[in-house]
Amino acid sequence: MEVVLQPSEKISHLSCDSCGRRFAPGEVELTCPDCGPELGTLTVHYHIERIRAVLTRAVLAQRSEQSHWRYLEMLPVAERPAVLHPRVGWTPLYHLPELARREGVGTLWIKDDGINPSASFKDRASSIGVAHALEGGREVITAASTGNAASSVSLFAACAGMRAVIFVPATAPEAKIAQLLIFGAEVLAVGGSYDQAFDLCLEVAARRGWYCRNTAVNPYLGEGKKTAAFEICEQLGWEVPDAVVVSVGDGCIIGGLWKGFCDFHALGLIDRLPRIFGVQARGSAPLVEAFERGARTARPGEEASTCADSICVGHPRDHIKALRAARESGGALVAVDDEDILRAIRRLAREAGVFAEPAGATGFAGLSTLVAAGTLGSSDRVVVLVTGNGLKDVATARGAVEREPVPVEPDIDAVLEVI
Amino acid sequence: MEVVLQPSEKISHLSCDSCGRRFAPGEVELTCPDCGPELGTLTVHYHIERIRAVLTRAVLAQRSEQSHWRYLEMLPVAERPAVLHPRVGWTPLYHLPELARREGVGTLWIKDDGINPSASFKDRASSIGVAHALEGGREVITAASTGNAASSVSLFAACAGMRAVIFVPATAPEAKIAQLLIFGAEVLAVGGSYDQAFDLCLEVAARRGWYCRNTAVNPYLGEGKKTAAFEICEQLGWEVPDAVVVSVGDGCIIGGLWKGFCDFHALGLIDRLPRIFGVQARGSAPLVEAFERGARTARPGEEASTCADSICVGHPRDHIKALRAARESGGALVAVDDEDILRAIRRLAREAGVFAEPAGATGFAGLSTLVAAGTLGSSDRVVVLVTGNGLKDVATARGAVEREPVPVEPDIDAVLEVI
Repeated sequence: MEVVLQPSEKISHLSCDSCGRRFAPGEVELTCPDCGPELGTLTVHYHIERIRAVLTRAVLAQRSEQSHWRYLEMLPVAERPAVLHPRVGWTPLYHLPELARREGVGTLWIKDDGINPSASFKDRASSIGVAHALEGGREVITAASTGNAASSVSLFAACAGMRAVIFVPATAPEAKIAQLLIFGAEVLAVGGSYDQAFDLCLEVAARRGWYCRNTAVNPYLGEGKKTAAFEICEQLGWEVPDAVVVSVGDGCIIGGLWKGFCDFHALGLIDRLPRIFGVQARGSAPLVEAFERGARTARPGEEASTCADSICVGHPRDHIKALRAARESGGALVAVDDEDILRAIRRLAREAGVFAEPAGATGFAGLSTLVAAGTLGSSDRVVVLVTGNGLKDVATARGAVEREPVPVEPDIDAVLEVI
Repeated sequence: MEVVLQPSEKISHLSCDSCGRRFAPGEVELTCPDCGPELGTLTVHYHIERIRAVLTRAVLAQRSEQSHWRYLEMLPVAERPAVLHPRVGWTPLYHLPELARREGVGTLWIKDDGINPSASFKDRASSIGVAHALEGGREVITAASTGNAASSVSLFAACAGMRAVIFVPATAPEAKIAQLLIFGAEVLAVGGSYDQAFDLCLEVAARRGWYCRNTAVNPYLGEGKKTAAFEICEQLGWEVPDAVVVSVGDGCIIGGLWKGFCDFHALGLIDRLPRIFGVQARGSAPLVEAFERGARTARPGEEASTCADSICVGHPRDHIKALRAARESGGALVAVDDEDILRAIRRLAREAGVFAEPAGATGFAGLSTLVAAGTLGSSDRVVVLVTGNGLKDVATARGAVEREPVPVEPDIDAVLEVI
């Protein structure tokens, strides 16, 4: 019988990503009061020695749980609430030798997070957020999102019977709005940018005491995101890849991934760390700009513009963690054109059988860039993360294809003529 | 080491669903020449005694394969082609005690086939179809489809490097067309009904010698569909449910499900059979009509009309197997209104965390009908199959929700006023 650890037995402290100030669990809700939400994002630290004794490769090998809840010892909640959707994470990792050869890398895996319950990677964070809100006795959860985080938290809030209030930019794709409404969320369509929606959400959460499921400012969400790294280690039989490539908007996923590898390294479950590469769309690349000038923080850019709406972020909220991930791991942040993203959508569909939304295909688009630059090559074992399902943004997918349906009359001769 | 059986060692014969005439494997391509495509659909029979010796509960318990290819001994191909997408089937079965209570059944499971690679149940059939075409050395595969079968076969054809030519009614939903094009299929948008697209596809396949992935007329496709039944048995620890409820258009899925349970029963893997219930949309219910008048075959109905496009079929092609499944199993075929389907979409999303396309939610809509009629009740253990992902038809989902996003200016006072 396994022992259930309470969060206070697992979490040792939180630390500010800028000033390093330490906080006891529960001492602050979101960010460092000295540094504020812009610079004072927090990192969660665990009692590694205690957990090392109970979370071993042998213990994991015995677990039948096929979701990210299999890593409960390293999650900031006591348990998985029974009401929550059970299937989060533990997403497939496809080994694609032919595609690796074509791309010019040694080994290539695609990890498809588009099959999560709400069809995006964000379910990893939302499931933890809702579980955390429930353990804290909260009744309303709020988020600002270009779409994926919102539909995801709406799903988990619906499971938990919580009220969800979502701030979206009025321009979010139809499919994502439909998901929010279907899951019963209250949706505020802000006649402004994602960045404005984000600020409004923060303020409302603070004034009303609502649980804030917002990227970056809530340190517990990254603890859900890191589970993708845990899974990569386990699914590859503990052979850590040389590189992991992923799309970047706010920077939370890349930050979470790096945290995951570091946590497992600290636990002694893996003996080396991968390089982490983040890929932004060129029209929305403030983190690439910051990386290239060697900065520790990003400057909010001009208005962002890309077909990849999920990473269309002019003001990346998790900039410090994202830049740290790329730099500490020996990776990089690179930009790709929208054209590259559209080509990546086509190629992933046809060569890997994975239909990705634009942001979901951006990591794969970046792989070609990294190989062309000589950064990655034929000796590298590479994992590319697909973060969202292509059905979430069909309009852009339509723009990615080179041909249209051929209209034909319902008549055999007409058909034989066109084929 | 397990022995790989060739199709000729597995399949004993095929039989005509109408006249009973027997054919050796490979003797005919599609349907019985005496009875024609309308009445002469075929059923595949296996060397049950031979397979019984190698496919046991103990053997299955040892298999790590988490896809429907784990049942290779009972599939009509020699092996899974390495090029095909590996993740087909073995879809989650959610146990929903609270929803069971609300619905008035003893136990309720939802099997979510919307997470298959192309986001629908049809991947089960398409994967087998493409594997079968490859083993036969075919180079072109064709299908007529309202959308799901087509996007599915396009995905698997792309994996296999086969040319796919798809006939769709010009009215198919945008998301489904986008999928076809993304996967590189050639799409003929027929200015007519699904039924006309179907007939054209059959004729072109015959004239050109293309592999025909068409529902009903290709007996091997149902062999893919039956794997959902295999999985239900195994996932429930060999405790066969009392009832399985599923949406019905052409009738292939319900026919395949029944075949699966019967095959496992013949193999001695299960000791009883479930009742199978099919649910049609009222505007597209020729099989319900046939069932109610006790007929063995359906009369092609008037033009079909329902929001559930995947089951909008006036001329059900697998009518004989569908009616047999409901009748032989002691089940039934029932109709629901489009309103019920829309409500089922909402409820599945909010109460089970499963976003289903309209046809995908139709089985659940029918469950309420069956309970209201007293056909199913508190002593029944019921599995409801969800056949497709809600992101496939977002427009209809939007119509299913009772509220719209609230537009708001990017200003805190404006926001506080509306929440």
